[in-house]
Amino acid sequence: MAVEKFRFPTMHPVAGFRLGTTSAGIKKAGRKDVVVMEIAEGGSVVGAFTKNRFCAAPVHVCRDHLANTEARFLVVNTGNANACTGDRGMQDALKTCEVLAKEVGVDLKSVLPFSTGVIGEHLPMDRLLSALPSAVADLSVEGWADAATGIMTTDTREKGASVQFEHEGKTVTVTGIAKGSGMIKPNMATMLAFVATDAAVEKSLLQGLLSESVEQSFNRITVDGDTSTNDSSILIATGCVDLPLLNDAASPLYHKLQAALVDVHIQLAQNIVADGEGATKFISVNVAGGKTEDECLKVAYAIAHSPLIKTACYASDPNWGRIVAAIGYAGVDNLDADAVSVKLDDVLIVEKGGRAATYQEEMGQSVMTQAEFAFNIELNRGDAKTTVWTCDFSHEYVSINADYRS
Amino acid sequence: MAVEKFRFPTMHPVAGFRLGTTSAGIKKAGRKDVVVMEIAEGGSVVGAFTKNRFCAAPVHVCRDHLANTEARFLVVNTGNANACTGDRGMQDALKTCEVLAKEVGVDLKSVLPFSTGVIGEHLPMDRLLSALPSAVADLSVEGWADAATGIMTTDTREKGASVQFEHEGKTVTVTGIAKGSGMIKPNMATMLAFVATDAAVEKSLLQGLLSESVEQSFNRITVDGDTSTNDSSILIATGCVDLPLLNDAASPLYHKLQAALVDVHIQLAQNIVADGEGATKFISVNVAGGKTEDECLKVAYAIAHSPLIKTACYASDPNWGRIVAAIGYAGVDNLDADAVSVKLDDVLIVEKGGRAATYQEEMGQSVMTQAEFAFNIELNRGDAKTTVWTCDFSHEYVSINADYRS
Repeated sequence: MAVEKFRFPTMHPVAGFRLGTTSAGIKKAGRKDVVVMEIAEGGSVVGAFTKNRFCAAPVHVCRDHLANTEARFLVVNTGNANACTGDRGMQDALKTCEVLAKEVGVDLKSVLPFSTGVIGEHLPMDRLLSALPSAVADLSVEGWADAATGIMTTDTREKGASVQFEHEGKTVTVTGIAKGSGMIKPNMATMLAFVATDAAVEKSLLQGLLSESVEQSFNRITVDGDTSTNDSSILIATGCVDLPLLNDAASPLYHKLQAALVDVHIQLAQNIVADGEGATKFISVNVAGGKTEDECLKVAYAIAHSPLIKTACYASDPNWGRIVAAIGYAGVDNLDADAVSVKLDDVLIVEKGGRAATYQEEMGQSVMTQAEFAFNIELNRGDAKTTVWTCDFSHEYVSINADYRS
Repeated sequence: MAVEKFRFPTMHPVAGFRLGTTSAGIKKAGRKDVVVMEIAEGGSVVGAFTKNRFCAAPVHVCRDHLANTEARFLVVNTGNANACTGDRGMQDALKTCEVLAKEVGVDLKSVLPFSTGVIGEHLPMDRLLSALPSAVADLSVEGWADAATGIMTTDTREKGASVQFEHEGKTVTVTGIAKGSGMIKPNMATMLAFVATDAAVEKSLLQGLLSESVEQSFNRITVDGDTSTNDSSILIATGCVDLPLLNDAASPLYHKLQAALVDVHIQLAQNIVADGEGATKFISVNVAGGKTEDECLKVAYAIAHSPLIKTACYASDPNWGRIVAAIGYAGVDNLDADAVSVKLDDVLIVEKGGRAATYQEEMGQSVMTQAEFAFNIELNRGDAKTTVWTCDFSHEYVSINADYRS
């Protein structure tokens, strides 16, 4: 099940970035599960990674390689996370880089490895390594859709986003794919994202653009509150569009590119939530009127993480008592409960510490039966605000996660 | 569904404390839903209450009354929480006290009101008030079991605990009841507990004994991470046993009473977890080897709150990857993942950042098919430790909470 919110869009190719996908039979025979991506020489690659202390072997290798050399190739497998796999996991990740590097004739350190899937099992190296040549043979600037399939785990559909804008008569493209459905929460999750642009961007600026995009997208979504060992978000600037190197954060191009990148990352993040495990509703939690963004986030996450609220959303039950309870325990210092108001979309349901006088149960129910709606919370104590996106909690969530490994 | 761990025990009466139960038809006709309790003159009553900023009207009234007068009567209704009910909710709570006070001939402020049930609806005052005389008529030192029924909401069974100990040839009794199954977490939850002893205890000492007991019991349990607007834990010392007033925290009697109180509160708390909504497993999360108890708690709650782990427990699936992921994101500064070990009961499943060499999947599965088991986590960086109790997450949890109000 998944919320019918996003369709896989037209993916504009990014000059200087090719993707190739193949089947290695890592977990299931015949499914696309290995993706290789190639960045043209002269491109720039930056990454943002999980903060989990048990981060996976490929994350260690990625960090190390990014710190040393400009990346030229990315290799992704699904079906196995190569996490909590000890020394052998590190060797497997390095071996994957080494074999691909030899195949394509680059330095070992210019290959970045990514894995997603079950934790704690060793990669089937024979199958993975022998599949690399066919992934390389498949490399194409048109390879986005297949790659979106090839990185899926419990995802029920491919996730992509692609935008273009004009600058000085040239078309700049930003295109990306992502995977992830369970274990999504701030600081990322079992989530992989690869976004590429053909703009030329100075590396420290590119890193800043990625940080900001991730903060406004993947760090604002939650499915079940868990974060994973493998999350990685990668941003590539190939520099293949005929524009000068972007090295000024005050320039018009910077602002246009920033907007396009944030847009693509938010689309991917929302797409992940809408495909949350067992999700039937896409829910925005907007919190305004806080003293700080941090306290707005506390309230938003108290709501977005509450299994009681998420099950009520599943049932289209406007159980606003659970909502105010969550606001009340969110940990906002000296919150004046009487000053708080709550709307479901535009329907005022709570004010002055209780049910709004104008509110009728049917009004709330009619909002919540929609596949998409918002909780709008006003704290009335400041000017800060934030938004978090989440989904509901269904019988199917339990089934998926009770059965995932069987 | 509920874990078959606890049976309702023999409830030793507490001299000077009587309970009376009746049916007011607050939410459903014919069910026991109003309980009155009487403390003999000269007794002492202390309370610990929810920290939720949206606390319910009766919680406000309880706090105010406890600060002003020695309580003589408690009145509890189930079926309606009288929370988020604005001024009228306050008036309803006060009116309930007033009518009971007149009925039994005490001051309004010596009555404490408690409500549990649906949030945001007004109390059916006519039915509630007209039921008070029959509850009063039912008062008896033998009334514990009926009262345990009369305070239930989504509970599937009565929760009680009762212990006795000897001191200087006298028998001291500690007996208590509690309700609660969903919305249970630290800082209490939709949880009510009433524990009485016939010891005579100086009031500030009694408050300290309650705080300590709550900290070791109700603040160490979690079902779904939500905390409610109405949680209250009340401790009564009637002073009816023939022993001198306890006013010395270094005395032998103090230590015996402390042990008995902690025992009764932990039994009640574990009983609540075992009756968690849809629970099929009772799970202890023991975290040792932390630098501080606080960091042990962070790890314990990261595990106990993870829907991914709770669904894996439901499925008896030793998915240790999810366990190490939760330890990794718990927020312990500079945690050395390689130093952490995890056991399921006595079975070592994780060490040195990965699966233990000796571990076979069947060993973990055989532990997890039990109705009761423990996660034993060793952080290996200090001497602090803690324990949190929780339950699994089942299809039935979703059903109960999706359907609760319908």
